[in-house]
Amino acid sequence: MKDYRSLSAKEREHLLAQLLGEYEKYKAMGLSLDLSRGKPNAEQLDISQAMLAVDMSREACFDDTGFDCRNYGMLDGVPEMKRFFAYLYGLKKEYIFIGGNSSLQLMYDTLARAMLFGVLGSPRPWCREEGRKWICVAPGYDRHFAITEAFGFELLTVRMTPTGPDMDEVEKLVADPKVKGIWCVPKYSNPTGNTYSDETVRRLAKMKCAAPDFRIMWDNAYAVHDINDHGDTLADIFAEARAFGTEDRIFYFSSTSKITFPGGGVSLLAATPANLAQMKPLIGVQTIGYDKLNQLRHLRYFANPDAVREHMTRMGDYIRNKFSITLAALSELDGLGIAEWTKPNGGYFISLDVLPGTAKRVFELMREVGVTLTGVGATFPYGVDPDDSNLRIAPTYPTDSDLALACKILVLAVKIAALEKMK
Amino acid sequence: MKDYRSLSAKEREHLLAQLLGEYEKYKAMGLSLDLSRGKPNAEQLDISQAMLAVDMSREACFDDTGFDCRNYGMLDGVPEMKRFFAYLYGLKKEYIFIGGNSSLQLMYDTLARAMLFGVLGSPRPWCREEGRKWICVAPGYDRHFAITEAFGFELLTVRMTPTGPDMDEVEKLVADPKVKGIWCVPKYSNPTGNTYSDETVRRLAKMKCAAPDFRIMWDNAYAVHDINDHGDTLADIFAEARAFGTEDRIFYFSSTSKITFPGGGVSLLAATPANLAQMKPLIGVQTIGYDKLNQLRHLRYFANPDAVREHMTRMGDYIRNKFSITLAALSELDGLGIAEWTKPNGGYFISLDVLPGTAKRVFELMREVGVTLTGVGATFPYGVDPDDSNLRIAPTYPTDSDLALACKILVLAVKIAALEKMK
Repeated sequence: MKDYRSLSAKEREHLLAQLLGEYEKYKAMGLSLDLSRGKPNAEQLDISQAMLAVDMSREACFDDTGFDCRNYGMLDGVPEMKRFFAYLYGLKKEYIFIGGNSSLQLMYDTLARAMLFGVLGSPRPWCREEGRKWICVAPGYDRHFAITEAFGFELLTVRMTPTGPDMDEVEKLVADPKVKGIWCVPKYSNPTGNTYSDETVRRLAKMKCAAPDFRIMWDNAYAVHDINDHGDTLADIFAEARAFGTEDRIFYFSSTSKITFPGGGVSLLAATPANLAQMKPLIGVQTIGYDKLNQLRHLRYFANPDAVREHMTRMGDYIRNKFSITLAALSELDGLGIAEWTKPNGGYFISLDVLPGTAKRVFELMREVGVTLTGVGATFPYGVDPDDSNLRIAPTYPTDSDLALACKILVLAVKIAALEKMK
Repeated sequence: MKDYRSLSAKEREHLLAQLLGEYEKYKAMGLSLDLSRGKPNAEQLDISQAMLAVDMSREACFDDTGFDCRNYGMLDGVPEMKRFFAYLYGLKKEYIFIGGNSSLQLMYDTLARAMLFGVLGSPRPWCREEGRKWICVAPGYDRHFAITEAFGFELLTVRMTPTGPDMDEVEKLVADPKVKGIWCVPKYSNPTGNTYSDETVRRLAKMKCAAPDFRIMWDNAYAVHDINDHGDTLADIFAEARAFGTEDRIFYFSSTSKITFPGGGVSLLAATPANLAQMKPLIGVQTIGYDKLNQLRHLRYFANPDAVREHMTRMGDYIRNKFSITLAALSELDGLGIAEWTKPNGGYFISLDVLPGTAKRVFELMREVGVTLTGVGATFPYGVDPDDSNLRIAPTYPTDSDLALACKILVLAVKIAALEKMK
């Protein structure tokens, strides 16, 4: 295909008219399609259905220490579940705290506690830190940004690169003692699908932070979410940090929301024993404990952590198909010089960068034809993409045929918006 | 039995020596019994076991609106669950927000949000209210007191009476704008087992509060926990408050922790639509939603809210037996003039007031013989009982024979401590 920039004005005008004609035909179809939601489709959820039918008779409600998990107790989770997650994620079991059905809630609660009480090493509660700031890697996850925005942090944007955040920029920013932390989705990052390089992980562990209570919010949501045999490898941030004496700066999170059920999974937080010793008495004021029966349900279903790998292979097959449909459609844009996109080895998203200044127009064109995209700017702090260029594509929820049609129209819209811009 | 105060010093000395002899025999038995834990016993939990075996096949995971409850969404809960709780608790369904497995967590989170953002009508976030104060009805629930203590409130103690808090005192205190709220367990109060009278509920609804954002934390944990046919009746605080235009001051909480499983129940918050409109966007920053599958599990098990009543009759039979064993033992103290105790129609606790200045001694005597009681003072703000008189008895957890033995020794300890004091 020919680069649009090499076309004459006349040729571009002609092409635009032709594409708009095609577009009108789709508009007449009265479609209602959705590429915005980073959530599994019902068929994908069916893969985990058997978990809801595991034996939960009386005997099965006691853990391997003989504890009756139907009752109160075990604030930090069932020991067997801690060992399970430790093996699956390559963490030390004494670092693990098991939460409820939402790792987002664990993250929010961790920062809410920091606001009200501070973290280990805090000179004061964060709500008393005037002018507090937080680093947001963008494009990134809007729900992360929303938490620190709600808590009154000034959000500092650092560009996401194929190897993770622009570390030169991060290292500069953390020299400011008002900068209290950074949001990271280190593997199959939302939305680019890129994984932090070993070098990036090492620099995050090594960097000198002026704030004595700086924290890395390490949301490893897609830790086991490869979609092919050559999945990405993420360095062990705790091991790296141990070498530099900075382990306390890491708050690690994950969950089974996208392993079993988004509504009914199990979340975890991992942090050094020193951090946990500061946090647990405060968590003990908030709750007597999380749902241990759902922890057992997961343990009974996944006889061992390796069973998760097998389960995720089936899940990966499902998602790879969605990614393939999307990437096949996007290949129509190859060589046109108007768009770039990622080809992740896992995760839930594909990130599409269109001609700067046209993302909003693409969104509008899609909306008018009945296809919902993630809001432009949602992947940036304060909901503003300075280049008006990034679009997050969430291909998992639609059916195959809906997805193929929506992507075909998306390609058309990207072309139209570019040609309009180049007029 | 003869009032100890009518005995001569000689008679008392003789009696004490005899009781100490008995006590030594128990001491030699090397017992290990526990009357401290307000939690169900395993047999009692067996009553709900079938809930963990309800059909949760694919079809059963869709609610009656066709929503796939395995997936993300429905921040405020499954509509069917809201209607269920509305009927069960006599609440309007549009007042209901469904939470996770812990109503304590809903309460903590509600106050944490108030600290960081304020509530409807707050001039500023509560963390910026210097000298903030909170009313604690005592004896009361230590976990309530711990939350407001952690959040930096000065705790103001108001005496619990057989008809609820001393309302003259409450009405005086709320004239101070720094007093932001009150903790209430209105039915089968922890630990006295008393229920607020209609007059008390009305006065709470009617009272003039100087703080524009005063809140009543109405923890109706034992709403359906009668142990006999003549269970207590609690007035509808929302209806009372509606008459006085004060409905927004009520945050109502409950859960199925002591209906089904303490570790795996469903909690709820009820508040006016105006309050919910202020809270929901903030809760939406904290989580995408709570565990809807566990909501469905409850709905499938209890075909209708009346089934809960039947279920609670079986539960009540179980608990009544534990209460009977305890009260039979305590009747040994009748007429001695050294103790008073409650005879609740429901709930989980019996409150025992021993001779002022002897509660700690009773605790020590019990500890030395191997019986754990709830810590003396735990039922008071800051853990201090000014009269050193109140003991909370939690009879549900031990087996019948352990309970009978523990209560027999308790009676002995109460007598010994009183006689020592009267020397």
